Amino acid sequence: MARGVIELKNPPRIIASAAVGGKKEGEGPCGEQFDMLDPTGLFGKETWEQAEAEMQGRALSLAMHKAKKRQEDLDLLIAGDLMNQCTSSSFGALSFGVPYLGIYGACSTSAEGLLLGSLLYDAGRASLLGVVVSSHFCSAERQFRYPLDYGGQRPPTAQWTVTGAGAFLLGHEGSGPSITAVLPGRIVDGGITDANNMGAAMAPAAYDTLKRYFDGSGSAPQDYDRIVTGDLGAEGYAILKDLFAHDGVTLGESYTDCGILIYDAARQDVHAGGSGCGCSATVLSAVLLPRRYKRMLYVATGALMSPMSVKQGMSIPGIAHLVCIESEG
Amino acid sequence: MARGVIELKNPPRIIASAAVGGKKEGEGPCGEQFDMLDPTGLFGKETWEQAEAEMQGRALSLAMHKAKKRQEDLDLLIAGDLMNQCTSSSFGALSFGVPYLGIYGACSTSAEGLLLGSLLYDAGRASLLGVVVSSHFCSAERQFRYPLDYGGQRPPTAQWTVTGAGAFLLGHEGSGPSITAVLPGRIVDGGITDANNMGAAMAPAAYDTLKRYFDGSGSAPQDYDRIVTGDLGAEGYAILKDLFAHDGVTLGESYTDCGILIYDAARQDVHAGGSGCGCSATVLSAVLLPRRYKRMLYVATGALMSPMSVKQGMSIPGIAHLVCIESEG
Repeated sequence: MARGVIELKNPPRIIASAAVGGKKEGEGPCGEQFDMLDPTGLFGKETWEQAEAEMQGRALSLAMHKAKKRQEDLDLLIAGDLMNQCTSSSFGALSFGVPYLGIYGACSTSAEGLLLGSLLYDAGRASLLGVVVSSHFCSAERQFRYPLDYGGQRPPTAQWTVTGAGAFLLGHEGSGPSITAVLPGRIVDGGITDANNMGAAMAPAAYDTLKRYFDGSGSAPQDYDRIVTGDLGAEGYAILKDLFAHDGVTLGESYTDCGILIYDAARQDVHAGGSGCGCSATVLSAVLLPRRYKRMLYVATGALMSPMSVKQGMSIPGIAHLVCIESEG
Repeated sequence: MARGVIELKNPPRIIASAAVGGKKEGEGPCGEQFDMLDPTGLFGKETWEQAEAEMQGRALSLAMHKAKKRQEDLDLLIAGDLMNQCTSSSFGALSFGVPYLGIYGACSTSAEGLLLGSLLYDAGRASLLGVVVSSHFCSAERQFRYPLDYGGQRPPTAQWTVTGAGAFLLGHEGSGPSITAVLPGRIVDGGITDANNMGAAMAPAAYDTLKRYFDGSGSAPQDYDRIVTGDLGAEGYAILKDLFAHDGVTLGESYTDCGILIYDAARQDVHAGGSGCGCSATVLSAVLLPRRYKRMLYVATGALMSPMSVKQGMSIPGIAHLVCIESEG
């Protein structure tokens, strides 16, 4: 490959997927399309962290139920989340007893998982594999920002961490969308140090990946029915359009962002939009895949920071992984 | 594959590797075999976290220097560490500008990276790729346990987090050892809740992976010159031997553990041995690969916990990923 666009010879289908969410996600414009919502956000558990792990398990179980698959049919599970040491994924996967690869790409994790899963499927290394990611507003808020009870003020560029898990099964059956090409992202540092402006931190990475994809594949934005970034939010969305405009390239009507789609920003008081691994994953499962776009570029974006790195004055590097998803007719 | 042992058709060679460490590692029995040691542990940086990222960068640079490779020769970088949000890896990789996949497998990360890298190389998706992992006693201690100045007492089963980074380049040149087969681990929960006894938490996962490997490949412990686990330490080492003994299988003289090898436990007061992603990675690079064992099973083990999950009373699930490394003559 060298570093370029990877076209798959044996593209996997997304044979089933599922999206699980909480109260705010249910009240948003995509709410009715989630497979399961728990307005308490606890999913029957005692802590937010265990609730997030439970969401992963439920999303995967729902996807497997849709595809009429059992645990013993799964060759491999790839999972990730935002929690310290990725415990939502390891506890979520525990009861499945399936070979497991943990990944970390911050909010780009869904695309990193789909990319890796596609490459392993394409190479004949798995005939059915699962990709699961999650985030939870309550577990993320207290880990990354303030105790929930504190009620800290949020600046306009801040985003709202989605309570949600998305699960995807890659295999060969049925007529689901196929992942036909992938491009791993590079780490790009735009020099942003404001942890309340993740959109600005991640937009340069989305630009780097999309530009390399267009150049490498000899295509242009108008060749796609849908181009969707993960969770740049309103701020990052505008920056990405600007970056391409400087090149004389228009990201037109087909371009949107999962962080904008998941909430009604004005009505739901989420400022610049949604974020978190669960944001792009649930929107992809609940909203985008069912529309069966002929050719869609799904570019999930991640901010590779920690509260410690921000406090130490480090900038916030971003990354964006891309998968091209095609549907027939 | 289904879930079994994956034999590689096009095995990559480890064309070069490097190990970087701190003071205690330099004073241990493997000290002279490290490529670089900084007794201050700071590697010219102002914080332990930045020092750890710097170690990753230096280990990768050293491995590339040995192989006479430049950044533009690298197709892909796979990296991971123990820090919250894996920042040692993202900051360590930042200056390389290479497509990047972040992984999380706790102390099993080196084997997870070698496994994934081997599969992508085998599939023709990269002709040269890097795998880098790290841990740092000072960044880990304050994140997982106590402030350094506190001087908390350590029970006899506790292990000492290695300050070290290991980097491995997978490619086709030269006569370095080849990765000929891999087996991804499953998450196994032995019910251990004591964060000062990681060896006991991880041993059942090492047993699960090794047993599946022997069964799947039709081989036995005596077919290997070396079987080495990641960082079970003295406690987990004994438990793993016991688990196999119950099956009537003897893990004989060829079995050892990187957590035991890296320090002189009695002289260096490290209790049950070394741990951390950097433990098995540096021992593999500095000690094991140069010995050119004809057939070696490298089984790095990880404890998939966080301080939060332990405080919430959750047990500590383990995982163990396996790679089979073969050398000629």
